Amino acid sequence: MATTLKRINALKDKAFREGGFDGFLILNSTNLTYFTGFSGATALLVPRDDESVVYAYGVNYEHAKSESAKIKVELVRRSEKLTDEIAKQVKISKIEKLAVDALNIESWRALVKSLGSEGSIAIAPQFIRDLRKVKDEKEIELMRKAANLTSEGMRVAREMVEVGKREYEVAAEIEYAMRKMGSQGTAFETIVASGVCSAFPHGSCSDRKIQKGDLVVVDVGAIYRSYRSDMTRTFVVGHPSEKQKTLYQTIRTAQAKAFEVTKPNAKAADVDAIARKIITVAGYGEYFVHNLGHGVGLEVHEQPILSPESKDLLAAGNVVTLEPGIYLVGYGGIRIEDTILVHMKGAEKLTNGTYDLE
Amino acid sequence: MATTLKRINALKDKAFREGGFDGFLILNSTNLTYFTGFSGATALLVPRDDESVVYAYGVNYEHAKSESAKIKVELVRRSEKLTDEIAKQVKISKIEKLAVDALNIESWRALVKSLGSEGSIAIAPQFIRDLRKVKDEKEIELMRKAANLTSEGMRVAREMVEVGKREYEVAAEIEYAMRKMGSQGTAFETIVASGVCSAFPHGSCSDRKIQKGDLVVVDVGAIYRSYRSDMTRTFVVGHPSEKQKTLYQTIRTAQAKAFEVTKPNAKAADVDAIARKIITVAGYGEYFVHNLGHGVGLEVHEQPILSPESKDLLAAGNVVTLEPGIYLVGYGGIRIEDTILVHMKGAEKLTNGTYDLE
Repeated sequence: MATTLKRINALKDKAFREGGFDGFLILNSTNLTYFTGFSGATALLVPRDDESVVYAYGVNYEHAKSESAKIKVELVRRSEKLTDEIAKQVKISKIEKLAVDALNIESWRALVKSLGSEGSIAIAPQFIRDLRKVKDEKEIELMRKAANLTSEGMRVAREMVEVGKREYEVAAEIEYAMRKMGSQGTAFETIVASGVCSAFPHGSCSDRKIQKGDLVVVDVGAIYRSYRSDMTRTFVVGHPSEKQKTLYQTIRTAQAKAFEVTKPNAKAADVDAIARKIITVAGYGEYFVHNLGHGVGLEVHEQPILSPESKDLLAAGNVVTLEPGIYLVGYGGIRIEDTILVHMKGAEKLTNGTYDLE
Repeated sequence: MATTLKRINALKDKAFREGGFDGFLILNSTNLTYFTGFSGATALLVPRDDESVVYAYGVNYEHAKSESAKIKVELVRRSEKLTDEIAKQVKISKIEKLAVDALNIESWRALVKSLGSEGSIAIAPQFIRDLRKVKDEKEIELMRKAANLTSEGMRVAREMVEVGKREYEVAAEIEYAMRKMGSQGTAFETIVASGVCSAFPHGSCSDRKIQKGDLVVVDVGAIYRSYRSDMTRTFVVGHPSEKQKTLYQTIRTAQAKAFEVTKPNAKAADVDAIARKIITVAGYGEYFVHNLGHGVGLEVHEQPILSPESKDLLAAGNVVTLEPGIYLVGYGGIRIEDTILVHMKGAEKLTNGTYDLE
């Protein structure tokens, strides 16, 4: 609960002192988890000059009360409209410039109608994105745990990838191992993509049987107390070919060089460029069809973004992936990815385990 | 692919012939899966008088092409803005009244800017919701498979729930069993909520050890080729008390009576009312803190809704849950839930397995 109040105060500092707002309405479910420590809230209203209020429907109300001991919890009854309830509180708390983190068109219109004037609402997602992209000590502790569970899952993957095993069977063993050690589930749909399927970066698991000589891309993530992790390794079943070795070594070097420059104040676009250049020089630039990396936390894809177009500067407390890849349609793909913590003095791999081709 | 074109034609019929639009832009990721059969598309533009176009970023482009053989796939390059590309095609295809399934405020503004006039866009989510809530034969086949996997998972749950077992350990075994049989993952975060925690309808799994006399609510769902299922059973560890038996029997009867009236043309609110009345007469009405049920399909919560406020009429092809519950804070909770197919002549439980208290 101390965490909750600390985070709310940090938001007040950013949005009210720097941004000039006098109220913040949080509706995005992940943001609600970030501020309340609980996944069942429907809204959180943070007035500058009044007590914060969590809104919960009946199905989650008692749970919200038990989890949110230090914040007032309001029950949203079936007969009431959430936007009407929020508008009522906005008036009571004398909020004149309300920021909202996320709204679809329908909710926007409902809220504007309930409030009776459009001028006083602004969509301002960036304040919370900025807070969330710098992890505090508590978050880093949970992400370390999630990363350890993920690394354990990858160890199991290495054991399970063999000729005749179906892709989803490998996924089943990885997920089971992580779950038994305390993972809450999978951070995203596990990828076990073998043979030609490995050329699709987001290919999930099929019932394809792994064959001799296959490249097998395994991309997996555990969840620990809502915090996620993300890790990829590429295995070869049997003796790797010269081409497989070359592709692998290119990606390995690209990741290593990017890791070396991952530190506070580095431009995210520069980190991407270093990896991309190595792949391009090797002749595979056009086959690296995605960004180098992304932030990880309560969501598996969040800020900062490591891409050619990114404007982000890395900072201590960022947790990001570095995941160069090469995808040759009709042949196969290779990707290596780790979840990495940016430190005051550099970076640290939270996921670990080296499985180089032999 | 035949499915894809059939669904696009059904949308054209609804939105263009009945709704008066001459173009439909699909941006919601689940809707994109419904129409393309693939989860990596970023947008789908369906003009009345021109060929449909799938938009995919580089990371998914090759995969989209391999999966969407009969629809044109456009690569969205890094340097391009998706909304600009779409606006260009809207003009080429001479679309004057464009419907969009879902948009946040930021994308709305970008699209309006690209198109250059607001009058021609309308948010119209209901057309696709209406299509998706009536499952076709192909979908029913996949949902049967998902339901069977879920029922198998529940059989494992019954075996695993015992004194001293931790909640997440039970979840691990359930998920492993489903996954090994071909489930793609879990339809939602598995709930194994024991003792006082069972009084929170959405309580997930903790490391709490199950104790003698506990009520244990297990809520689980498998996924098969993107289709989901949803099932809950409540177990008692050891000999049930008279109060536990009474609560259980109340919920059992409430579900059975609701099931009897689940058929085409039934008002969803009436089905909810029948279950709610039984619970109310037993003295627990205020502790049934959620709706009786919801549609299930590509999403675990979709239309129709079975609630006191619902305006939905049930129809053949709907797949819904019936899940009455009683939640006594400080004591425990009970819920029984099945995924049910509405037939021409009545209803059929897709999930199955009776585990009555002895």
